[in-house]
Amino acid sequence: MAHNDTLSNAGLTQDELSGGDLKVFSPVDGAMIAEIKTHTPSDVEAMIARAKATFDAWRRVPAPRRGELIRLFGEELRAAKSELGALVTLECGKILQEGLGEVQEMIDICDLAVGQSRQLFGLTIASERPGHAMRETWHPMGVAGVITAFNFPVAPFAWNFCLAIVCGDPVIWKPSEKTPLCALATAKLFERAVEKFGDAPADLLQIALGAGEVGEVLTRSKDVPIISATGSTRMGRAVGPVVAERFGKSILELGGNNAMIVAPSADLDNAVRAIVFSAVGTCGQRCTSLRRVIVHEDVRDTLVERLKAVYQGLPIGNPLEAGTLVGPLIDGDAARMMEEALSAARAQGGTVTGGGSADGVEGGAYVHPAIVEMPDQTDIVCTETFAPILYVMTYKTLDEAIALQNGVPQGLSSCIFSTDVRETETFLSAVGSDCGIANVNIGPSGAEIGGAFGGEKETGGGRESGSDAWKAYMRRQTNTVNYSRELPLAQGITFDIKAMP
Amino acid sequence: MAHNDTLSNAGLTQDELSGGDLKVFSPVDGAMIAEIKTHTPSDVEAMIARAKATFDAWRRVPAPRRGELIRLFGEELRAAKSELGALVTLECGKILQEGLGEVQEMIDICDLAVGQSRQLFGLTIASERPGHAMRETWHPMGVAGVITAFNFPVAPFAWNFCLAIVCGDPVIWKPSEKTPLCALATAKLFERAVEKFGDAPADLLQIALGAGEVGEVLTRSKDVPIISATGSTRMGRAVGPVVAERFGKSILELGGNNAMIVAPSADLDNAVRAIVFSAVGTCGQRCTSLRRVIVHEDVRDTLVERLKAVYQGLPIGNPLEAGTLVGPLIDGDAARMMEEALSAARAQGGTVTGGGSADGVEGGAYVHPAIVEMPDQTDIVCTETFAPILYVMTYKTLDEAIALQNGVPQGLSSCIFSTDVRETETFLSAVGSDCGIANVNIGPSGAEIGGAFGGEKETGGGRESGSDAWKAYMRRQTNTVNYSRELPLAQGITFDIKAMP
Amino acid sequence: MAHNDTLSNAGLTQDELSGGDLKVFSPVDGAMIAEIKTHTPSDVEAMIARAKATFDAWRRVPAPRRGELIRLFGEELRAAKSELGALVTLECGKILQEGLGEVQEMIDICDLAVGQSRQLFGLTIASERPGHAMRETWHPMGVAGVITAFNFPVAPFAWNFCLAIVCGDPVIWKPSEKTPLCALATAKLFERAVEKFGDAPADLLQIALGAGEVGEVLTRSKDVPIISATGSTRMGRAVGPVVAERFGKSILELGGNNAMIVAPSADLDNAVRAIVFSAVGTCGQRCTSLRRVIVHEDVRDTLVERLKAVYQGLPIGNPLEAGTLVGPLIDGDAARMMEEALSAARAQGGTVTGGGSADGVEGGAYVHPAIVEMPDQTDIVCTETFAPILYVMTYKTLDEAIALQNGVPQGLSSCIFSTDVRETETFLSAVGSDCGIANVNIGPSGAEIGGAFGGEKETGGGRESGSDAWKAYMRRQTNTVNYSRELPLAQGITFDIKAMP
Amino acid sequence: MAHNDTLSNAGLTQDELSGGDLKVFSPVDGAMIAEIKTHTPSDVEAMIARAKATFDAWRRVPAPRRGELIRLFGEELRAAKSELGALVTLECGKILQEGLGEVQEMIDICDLAVGQSRQLFGLTIASERPGHAMRETWHPMGVAGVITAFNFPVAPFAWNFCLAIVCGDPVIWKPSEKTPLCALATAKLFERAVEKFGDAPADLLQIALGAGEVGEVLTRSKDVPIISATGSTRMGRAVGPVVAERFGKSILELGGNNAMIVAPSADLDNAVRAIVFSAVGTCGQRCTSLRRVIVHEDVRDTLVERLKAVYQGLPIGNPLEAGTLVGPLIDGDAARMMEEALSAARAQGGTVTGGGSADGVEGGAYVHPAIVEMPDQTDIVCTETFAPILYVMTYKTLDEAIALQNGVPQGLSSCIFSTDVRETETFLSAVGSDCGIANVNIGPSGAEIGGAFGGEKETGGGRESGSDAWKAYMRRQTNTVNYSRELPLAQGITFDIKAMP
Repeated sequence: MAHNDTLSNAGLTQDELSGGDLKVFSPVDGAMIAEIKTHTPSDVEAMIARAKATFDAWRRVPAPRRGELIRLFGEELRAAKSELGALVTLECGKILQEGLGEVQEMIDICDLAVGQSRQLFGLTIASERPGHAMRETWHPMGVAGVITAFNFPVAPFAWNFCLAIVCGDPVIWKPSEKTPLCALATAKLFERAVEKFGDAPADLLQIALGAGEVGEVLTRSKDVPIISATGSTRMGRAVGPVVAERFGKSILELGGNNAMIVAPSADLDNAVRAIVFSAVGTCGQRCTSLRRVIVHEDVRDTLVERLKAVYQGLPIGNPLEAGTLVGPLIDGDAARMMEEALSAARAQGGTVTGGGSADGVEGGAYVHPAIVEMPDQTDIVCTETFAPILYVMTYKTLDEAIALQNGVPQGLSSCIFSTDVRETETFLSAVGSDCGIANVNIGPSGAEIGGAFGGEKETGGGRESGSDAWKAYMRRQTNTVNYSRELPLAQGITFDIKAMP
Repeated sequence: MAHNDTLSNAGLTQDELSGGDLKVFSPVDGAMIAEIKTHTPSDVEAMIARAKATFDAWRRVPAPRRGELIRLFGEELRAAKSELGALVTLECGKILQEGLGEVQEMIDICDLAVGQSRQLFGLTIASERPGHAMRETWHPMGVAGVITAFNFPVAPFAWNFCLAIVCGDPVIWKPSEKTPLCALATAKLFERAVEKFGDAPADLLQIALGAGEVGEVLTRSKDVPIISATGSTRMGRAVGPVVAERFGKSILELGGNNAMIVAPSADLDNAVRAIVFSAVGTCGQRCTSLRRVIVHEDVRDTLVERLKAVYQGLPIGNPLEAGTLVGPLIDGDAARMMEEALSAARAQGGTVTGGGSADGVEGGAYVHPAIVEMPDQTDIVCTETFAPILYVMTYKTLDEAIALQNGVPQGLSSCIFSTDVRETETFLSAVGSDCGIANVNIGPSGAEIGGAFGGEKETGGGRESGSDAWKAYMRRQTNTVNYSRELPLAQGITFDIKAMP
Repeated sequence: MAHNDTLSNAGLTQDELSGGDLKVFSPVDGAMIAEIKTHTPSDVEAMIARAKATFDAWRRVPAPRRGELIRLFGEELRAAKSELGALVTLECGKILQEGLGEVQEMIDICDLAVGQSRQLFGLTIASERPGHAMRETWHPMGVAGVITAFNFPVAPFAWNFCLAIVCGDPVIWKPSEKTPLCALATAKLFERAVEKFGDAPADLLQIALGAGEVGEVLTRSKDVPIISATGSTRMGRAVGPVVAERFGKSILELGGNNAMIVAPSADLDNAVRAIVFSAVGTCGQRCTSLRRVIVHEDVRDTLVERLKAVYQGLPIGNPLEAGTLVGPLIDGDAARMMEEALSAARAQGGTVTGGGSADGVEGGAYVHPAIVEMPDQTDIVCTETFAPILYVMTYKTLDEAIALQNGVPQGLSSCIFSTDVRETETFLSAVGSDCGIANVNIGPSGAEIGGAFGGEKETGGGRESGSDAWKAYMRRQTNTVNYSRELPLAQGITFDIKAMP
Repeated sequence: MAHNDTLSNAGLTQDELSGGDLKVFSPVDGAMIAEIKTHTPSDVEAMIARAKATFDAWRRVPAPRRGELIRLFGEELRAAKSELGALVTLECGKILQEGLGEVQEMIDICDLAVGQSRQLFGLTIASERPGHAMRETWHPMGVAGVITAFNFPVAPFAWNFCLAIVCGDPVIWKPSEKTPLCALATAKLFERAVEKFGDAPADLLQIALGAGEVGEVLTRSKDVPIISATGSTRMGRAVGPVVAERFGKSILELGGNNAMIVAPSADLDNAVRAIVFSAVGTCGQRCTSLRRVIVHEDVRDTLVERLKAVYQGLPIGNPLEAGTLVGPLIDGDAARMMEEALSAARAQGGTVTGGGSADGVEGGAYVHPAIVEMPDQTDIVCTETFAPILYVMTYKTLDEAIALQNGVPQGLSSCIFSTDVRETETFLSAVGSDCGIANVNIGPSGAEIGGAFGGEKETGGGRESGSDAWKAYMRRQTNTVNYSRELPLAQGITFDIKAMP
């Protein structure tokens, strides 16, 4: 059967897919595709111990050489792009184009990380003392625990992993319990890269499988100085304090509640395209999915009408098939939560178009994406529901629109469609969007890897991927070297020991 | 009397120094120098509300103009350097040279911050999509709560404040209960700068006086996105999780347990000078005070002998008097804790030279700095005691010395005295010191403001002052601007809506 | 008389203003205001020798301390702002507001330079070899020769000087023969700063007065590794090769031929204001003066009509008087060249409004600013005439407008007035303006000091002022330090000497 | 025959290797290996015209996509490493290890350039005006002319080419007349990458073959804004002014006269190894070859003795054979110039050990590397002779050694062998080496590509390869965007038009 082909194409053997305690279902049709073995807390403790030893060796390997390993990993990903892309689709349900896009993002970050392996720039700094040199250098930090979510089963892992490896840090990866197979398949590709590399230490990547208690071992361990966790705000609110209490570093990528402001001057064709892709892509299960449209009253009716028309014609169905734009939700729970949210929206004054079950593959949780016209930014609008629900609100002035945009607890992504530079620049300014990502004339999702990815407020404040996100995987050290034969003090302080023996 | 002169020279009036519930004592002689009014939690809530409004205005002021306010503040500090330096000495007991040095550090950071007010550099970034521009910009973040400790009553405040103001963030400062007067005097100088500036909003700096519950209002408030806290590891362990739980940003500067490695090739003259300054300066009450000497067995005896000789002749006494090198501890509790640590050291095998009360000004907690020769890095050596205790241990190989240096829970500052470049560079490398600060041929204390200040592990991970420490006071935003008439997706994804209405 | 007051207020004595061979006239009224002594080539040789010795000392002074000298210079400039501003007006004829603005720019660059004195950031870089550290450091370069033009007698000097001094380089300044007094007055202010500083070496700033042969000694000297020259393209074409032939570094700020594109969506009120300020400010004698308006055919008539109306009412006259917006040209030659250009424009099809002598102060070269409607971008439009001539051309498509903008040999400054973000970003993109400066909705002149100032093509390619312009005054050094006991080669090369003795 | 195999393995066909006017000889045995067609000046003009058109297209391709082309080029180089390495050896005579090293360096720079294709970082900058955004962006510059020398026939090309392509600039490459085949073979590899890439414009790389007049067309052309030229100081002295006169940008990599200081504390084993590799590697024909040893008098005799012993046993011969460390000079002229230099050295007081013809492959110019003990740094020592001549001088104090090191007109590379950090850091400081490269405990040659490569003084000042060397291939643009509805001026200038129509 097709699922088995997809699994074996991705390098997974029936042996490892059976006999375990963790049942893995495909959202495509609800079929159980694997029963895999999970890890106990003491398994994870042992992983940490191994990773610590690996760290001691790996940090001694020059960074450009570490980069070479990631280059080889990128080559493996290129070679297996379609197979891994298909597995992503099978296991998390996003359409194949998006599955492939996720693997492409892994490849892109490999390229970026290879380049950075010859940089990892610190600073030389002017010292105030004669005969002194001051510098800031960045060093490997230690073991990194990477916790990822089902909706992006591989790309955020790669953002963290490729940088961490180049920065000198071994990684223990705890994938979502819903998408462990993508992790296993990825690890095999990395293993091939390790073999070609030749002399890498073992255990640069270890996979920790299981539920919350597995992740908890990582977040509590003093030997895991870095915890990068992608998931819900609820999760982050639990993880952050635990890591902080032991003085670890958290990189949190939590919930989003992303909005688009549509101004009167907007190119509505492009706005419609951007809205649909970002609201129904991944069936509304991206952290960057568009959840709120804040549209100027002058163009509201036109926009909503056009959106409804497009929504009606959206091809919903098997995500592995070409032409499908809307695949299934991850599972029936997700569908129930969508319906609950729609009920709440109705109760809070909303008018719902769409929603409810859709035809798809038998066994999967296929739904009709919903447009909800809201009179106001009520509680339910301020809540992230992981489903294709798009709330529409109107505004009169840009200030009002920005206030609505910023008026939710989350702060991940945002955008404006406007052709007026005074509006667009205001949106990007200190008094504009309060999100980590703010775009103009593109949707809130689908970031390039060259920029830093992440958000403010309840999104958790972490940054991954490009810019100087690599610094989160290293420790900074300020050095002052006195190469004179004197010993002057900073700030011109004198401290004279009278009788030097 | 002299104290009153010092107080009034620093601009404090008898009116504000009396009638309050918080008694302030001078460590110089134990005299009560003020009874000042403290704030209730609801006072602090009101401060936060005011600061929030101030933020809304201040973030709109261009950064170079914000820098102008800090330039004026620097001018006030220059004019009042000796008066404020004397108040520092009076209130926290450090010798006058160090009091003046602390004010100089405030002045230096003003200069640095003014320069940065025309930088605050973000990035323009190459986008993978035609007709798209990508950028990273930094925006003001919100209200910053700054909590400082008694031992540096003004400089760390200035590190935070000057950058925060330039970055667009109003500050609420909670000084140590032991040194509120320095805060009040500093605020007056800032007020003068505000007047000269002309049109700054009110409440850019507010002082919150009181004990823990005052600080707690700050750390718990969602409206204070940044908490910068200097103090003990115990304090940081409490503050960090509280701030993390509400997704705030912490900048923690906690305990240090700083070591010097003295290699056989060291210039012993300079090593002795550096050890004495960093071990007994500020009476051992700097977070960067030298607490551990790790000396090669070949030079151990010579070094210890010379140190003992210098320690015997150290001028202990009134810190306001020229010539004094060792002033009082902050209070009698500190002296008791020093004695307890020395007892523990003895119990753990140490041989103590020095310690015990010294002659000074009647009423003050004057002590003899102590040298403790330890057979091993025992528990007490791994503990930060805020007093002039110097533990001495020996080593045979550099690896061993580095392992000792890194073998404590704290990670603030460290140094090596060696003239062998292979040793010094190893110490600064990925396999060397694990501290945030690592120096060569200078002591662990007395950092210049051009570098980033802070440490790893239980020191809390925060960075202040130079390098790109300013980024902690701002929020980062990644922008992608589509200025084409197309709407391409990143990672080459296609998502074609067939029937565009 | 008023001129004498201005001169003496600026610290110049009658003694130094008389008896020399260089006659200095005020463009305000043509009065001779000084006869000053000039330098012979051998005087300049001696200056260079002294500066070289100064360099040897100054490069040893830590950069933050060098910054302190510039801070003090900034204080002197603040104190003497109105006096120096008046002298600028007296000697070069720009209106007082602009004279003051120029001094303000000096003050601003002082602040920036002070901040940079604790930065001068190089890089630490990841090395591919174990036990190796790689770095890039910036060191003082040597004597800098700074040649400035009459139209900005002090600000460009300060851009160069403040950075050069902070970077460790003494400066020999050759001001324009037409504005030596501003240089002398500035040098006096710096001398005061040197006195307050205390221990600076002599000859950090030397003024070389005279004509071309004085500058030639600088440009030809191997002991002047940096030549920064502001002036005409003709001058730059002579200087560049001479400096290149001896492997010196040139920073050239040459001619501009700056344009504004006015799109249909432009805010015409602001466009008119910006055009007038940048076309008639400094009487059209800025290198960044607006010389070309490229206006969309749909708004052309409205714009031209409004410009003509404003031009008619422009207050022309004594630049020292409040209310004046247009002062005199530098001298009668300039007025003649303006008329010649207008004749050429007419001959090439242009329709001239304005031009010709205007009432002003007797003896000065006061002219009516001219608007010239051109059918095409002819030769005369492609030529920089240092006078208030504004050529107006029309366009239909943005591509056409950009082609016109880029179709001149100069490449200094440019701007677009448009509210359409697709147009504005295109203008700033790789296919937009080819100038070093490209603005949106502001004119081409009046740059802030935080950015790098300079242009491409015949403008000479130099950059001064902000961003990393300081690097031009330093030499870059790439360091690799082997701190291991092995000797590996880069690129994995093996080179085994069999029998090591 | 073997040569033909090498040529055809590298993808060159007999057809293109015959019938031309430029005879190519292998230094291995003097055999003529090709007669290739050269270009006329008008051919080169046509190339420039094509490249200009290519530029117009290529600059529109997003930089990360441009990076993809370089990634593919890197793949081709990896695949053909041994074949291209052998061709390098055949055509320029360096030993195979070095030929392979050169190709590895090409591969490394590809990796670096790919990473940079997602960076090309400009700045966002704090503006002093409300409602204004300031930025610095980097744009493609235009056609780059790359002129390379025989001794590194491919790596410096790649440094320039990979960055130029990523930066958006097509390249016209004029290789040395002595090594055109390496260029042709490299171009074929790039062509393969272009094919895999798919939609690149033609003529991103064109090879211009011939003598000086071919290069001259490039250096004189206004349509080639960037000239990167590697070669002799004499060449650079001719090229620089020509390019400057037309306001082009030169990147000059000219002569070196590189020294090593050997201090008493040096690890002499490593020093000997480093000296031999850098003095006789590439038969002394690297621009970074070690030409001068400045040794402390205390270790001089030991060092010289050991060097002489090693020199006696150096395996000289066919560079294609494993075990050979010294291959031939490029031709008989080079051998004659070596002998002339040795004669001059003798005449100036030097004692020569070695020199003269050595056994090698019949027809090649094989020589014995020479050690010349000099009493002083005479004229001949200050001259770069492209041959394995090592001058040895002694010193007493470090200051003296540094003065000797800096006392030559060239400023490329330099190093110190010392284990004393005070010496090594002094050597790297503002008062140390005046070279662009300064190393500690490694030789002057064999730079990693992560740092910037190039030198000061007569070396020409250019920088290539890592750090921010990419900026030389782009133009910098400073942007200020006014998104407010006001029009404030910088520096607080007011310019009020009274009667706005």
